[in-house]
Amino acid sequence: MYSIGIDLGGTNIAVGVVNEKGSIVGKASTPTLAGRPFSELIADMADCAKQAVAKAKLTLEDIDRIGIGIPGVAKDGVVIFCTNLGWHNEPLSAELQKHINKPVYIDNDATVAGLAESVAGISKDTHSSVFITLGTGVGGGIVIDGKPWSGFHGVGSEIGHMILVAGGEQCTCGNKGCLERYCSATALIRMGKEALKKYPNSLINTLCGGDESKINAKCVIDAAREKDPAGCEAFESYTDYLAQAIATVVNFLDPEVIVLGGGVSKAGDFLLESVQAKVPNYLIFKTLPYSRIELARLGNEAGIIGAAMLGREA
Amino acid sequence: MYSIGIDLGGTNIAVGVVNEKGSIVGKASTPTLAGRPFSELIADMADCAKQAVAKAKLTLEDIDRIGIGIPGVAKDGVVIFCTNLGWHNEPLSAELQKHINKPVYIDNDATVAGLAESVAGISKDTHSSVFITLGTGVGGGIVIDGKPWSGFHGVGSEIGHMILVAGGEQCTCGNKGCLERYCSATALIRMGKEALKKYPNSLINTLCGGDESKINAKCVIDAAREKDPAGCEAFESYTDYLAQAIATVVNFLDPEVIVLGGGVSKAGDFLLESVQAKVPNYLIFKTLPYSRIELARLGNEAGIIGAAMLGREA
Repeated sequence: MYSIGIDLGGTNIAVGVVNEKGSIVGKASTPTLAGRPFSELIADMADCAKQAVAKAKLTLEDIDRIGIGIPGVAKDGVVIFCTNLGWHNEPLSAELQKHINKPVYIDNDATVAGLAESVAGISKDTHSSVFITLGTGVGGGIVIDGKPWSGFHGVGSEIGHMILVAGGEQCTCGNKGCLERYCSATALIRMGKEALKKYPNSLINTLCGGDESKINAKCVIDAAREKDPAGCEAFESYTDYLAQAIATVVNFLDPEVIVLGGGVSKAGDFLLESVQAKVPNYLIFKTLPYSRIELARLGNEAGIIGAAMLGREA
Repeated sequence: MYSIGIDLGGTNIAVGVVNEKGSIVGKASTPTLAGRPFSELIADMADCAKQAVAKAKLTLEDIDRIGIGIPGVAKDGVVIFCTNLGWHNEPLSAELQKHINKPVYIDNDATVAGLAESVAGISKDTHSSVFITLGTGVGGGIVIDGKPWSGFHGVGSEIGHMILVAGGEQCTCGNKGCLERYCSATALIRMGKEALKKYPNSLINTLCGGDESKINAKCVIDAAREKDPAGCEAFESYTDYLAQAIATVVNFLDPEVIVLGGGVSKAGDFLLESVQAKVPNYLIFKTLPYSRIELARLGNEAGIIGAAMLGREA
């Protein structure tokens, strides 16, 4: 049998038909067009899913369930909260089932990406994993015994909003000192700008074409690779916070593996090796084995693959 | 059937015979006398266990397993690390089985106390719970689906060493800003002493008999109950950090219930209500349901009861 995985983003709805091993055998996508009526958006989602099935040269009879990753919180088939799309208590499963009558499973997009890595990626066949997306914000996905864990009320795995520096930087969520204020691409850019004040002739300045508003995470990392003082200062500060965040996850949950994904993780081994070197500084049991730290493998397709894996234990 | 629960402390070994509902039916104890030869200590532990069985008017044939809670880390029957007793890689199960040939299960003492609450205490029959001991340090116990969770490598549930204030107060573990530097009885005493500098005529000063070295958590809390300014300042600061720590646990793991135990929790509803009022300030989804926050119920016997519950799922 096959399942349908839907990656519902603010811009695009990406759909894939996925086999039991986590490989995509057919794909389709359609613009989200956020803001339009819910039923219209879901009708397009269903059409797109049918296209993906046709592209896989299958029929709906070959499909046993549908999974959807959303940038928000869901419980029992209802999207409780999805800021980007302006959704609040929307009956996503029931609406989609009007078009395709299959079981529907919904979870947070970072949770889904973590599940994908644990089925077909770097954390395949592990006992437990924590996936951390280092993007504009920081998202998290916890997988225990092959099952995604979003908590009892569905509000967990929000790693970006664990408090890392109580009273620290103001977060968009209203709190101060959230982990994502120190470990996101946004944080790395802030650190790069701060370092640039100290070293105005930094390579960062060249890489952003002299326009500070164009500094991105890649500028800062590339400057650090070239041993530029501002780049190094920002990168060292960033990886030091990230190491403390990872050590906190180890000290609390100690999963078999911690997977780094999202935009900043594209820095590859340069990021990974820096973090791996710093994490032991912050562990409580410095001589005992602890979680492996790895880079995500599946890239953009993790959203589809992981969504398709939702409900496979049901 | 019954099981034997052993609470191995730095001062005393407390043993109980426990029925399947988590009630103690016979007890015995013996001094730990830390520092003496391992085999001698374990021989005493075994004798003490046999005494508890006799006091319960049972025989070893009525016992199906033994559980031990230790102030350290264990894996596969071996105590990997137990600072108080100076143990490192000690084969505790194998040594105890020379005296009583039953399956032996070992876990961290805070984990065991959390398990006890989830079997016979405030978190009974819950899907998931996180137990936080607020003592000299801060310990943690995670229970998921009735099973204790100490992580894949056995180094997890060390909630006291999650980083809450990166770069903050120096911790005994070598790091800075660990949660226990802000949420332990030790932290509350520090905050009381700081407030006393500002308000030298504080009630705290009276309650400790004018001897600052005698300030304990109870002095500070009792002063706060009486609306003493220094007491209130310290207590508000303490409960604010504790609320941030609890919100971090919700945002990450979102268990069904979070249980507060240990010395500071003896402040009862005065502590609980203050913390319950502050936690929502630090949650990401402020309008959604989240973990219940409760006080532990079992007190000192949690160590025996929880140890006896280890392995019941095996």
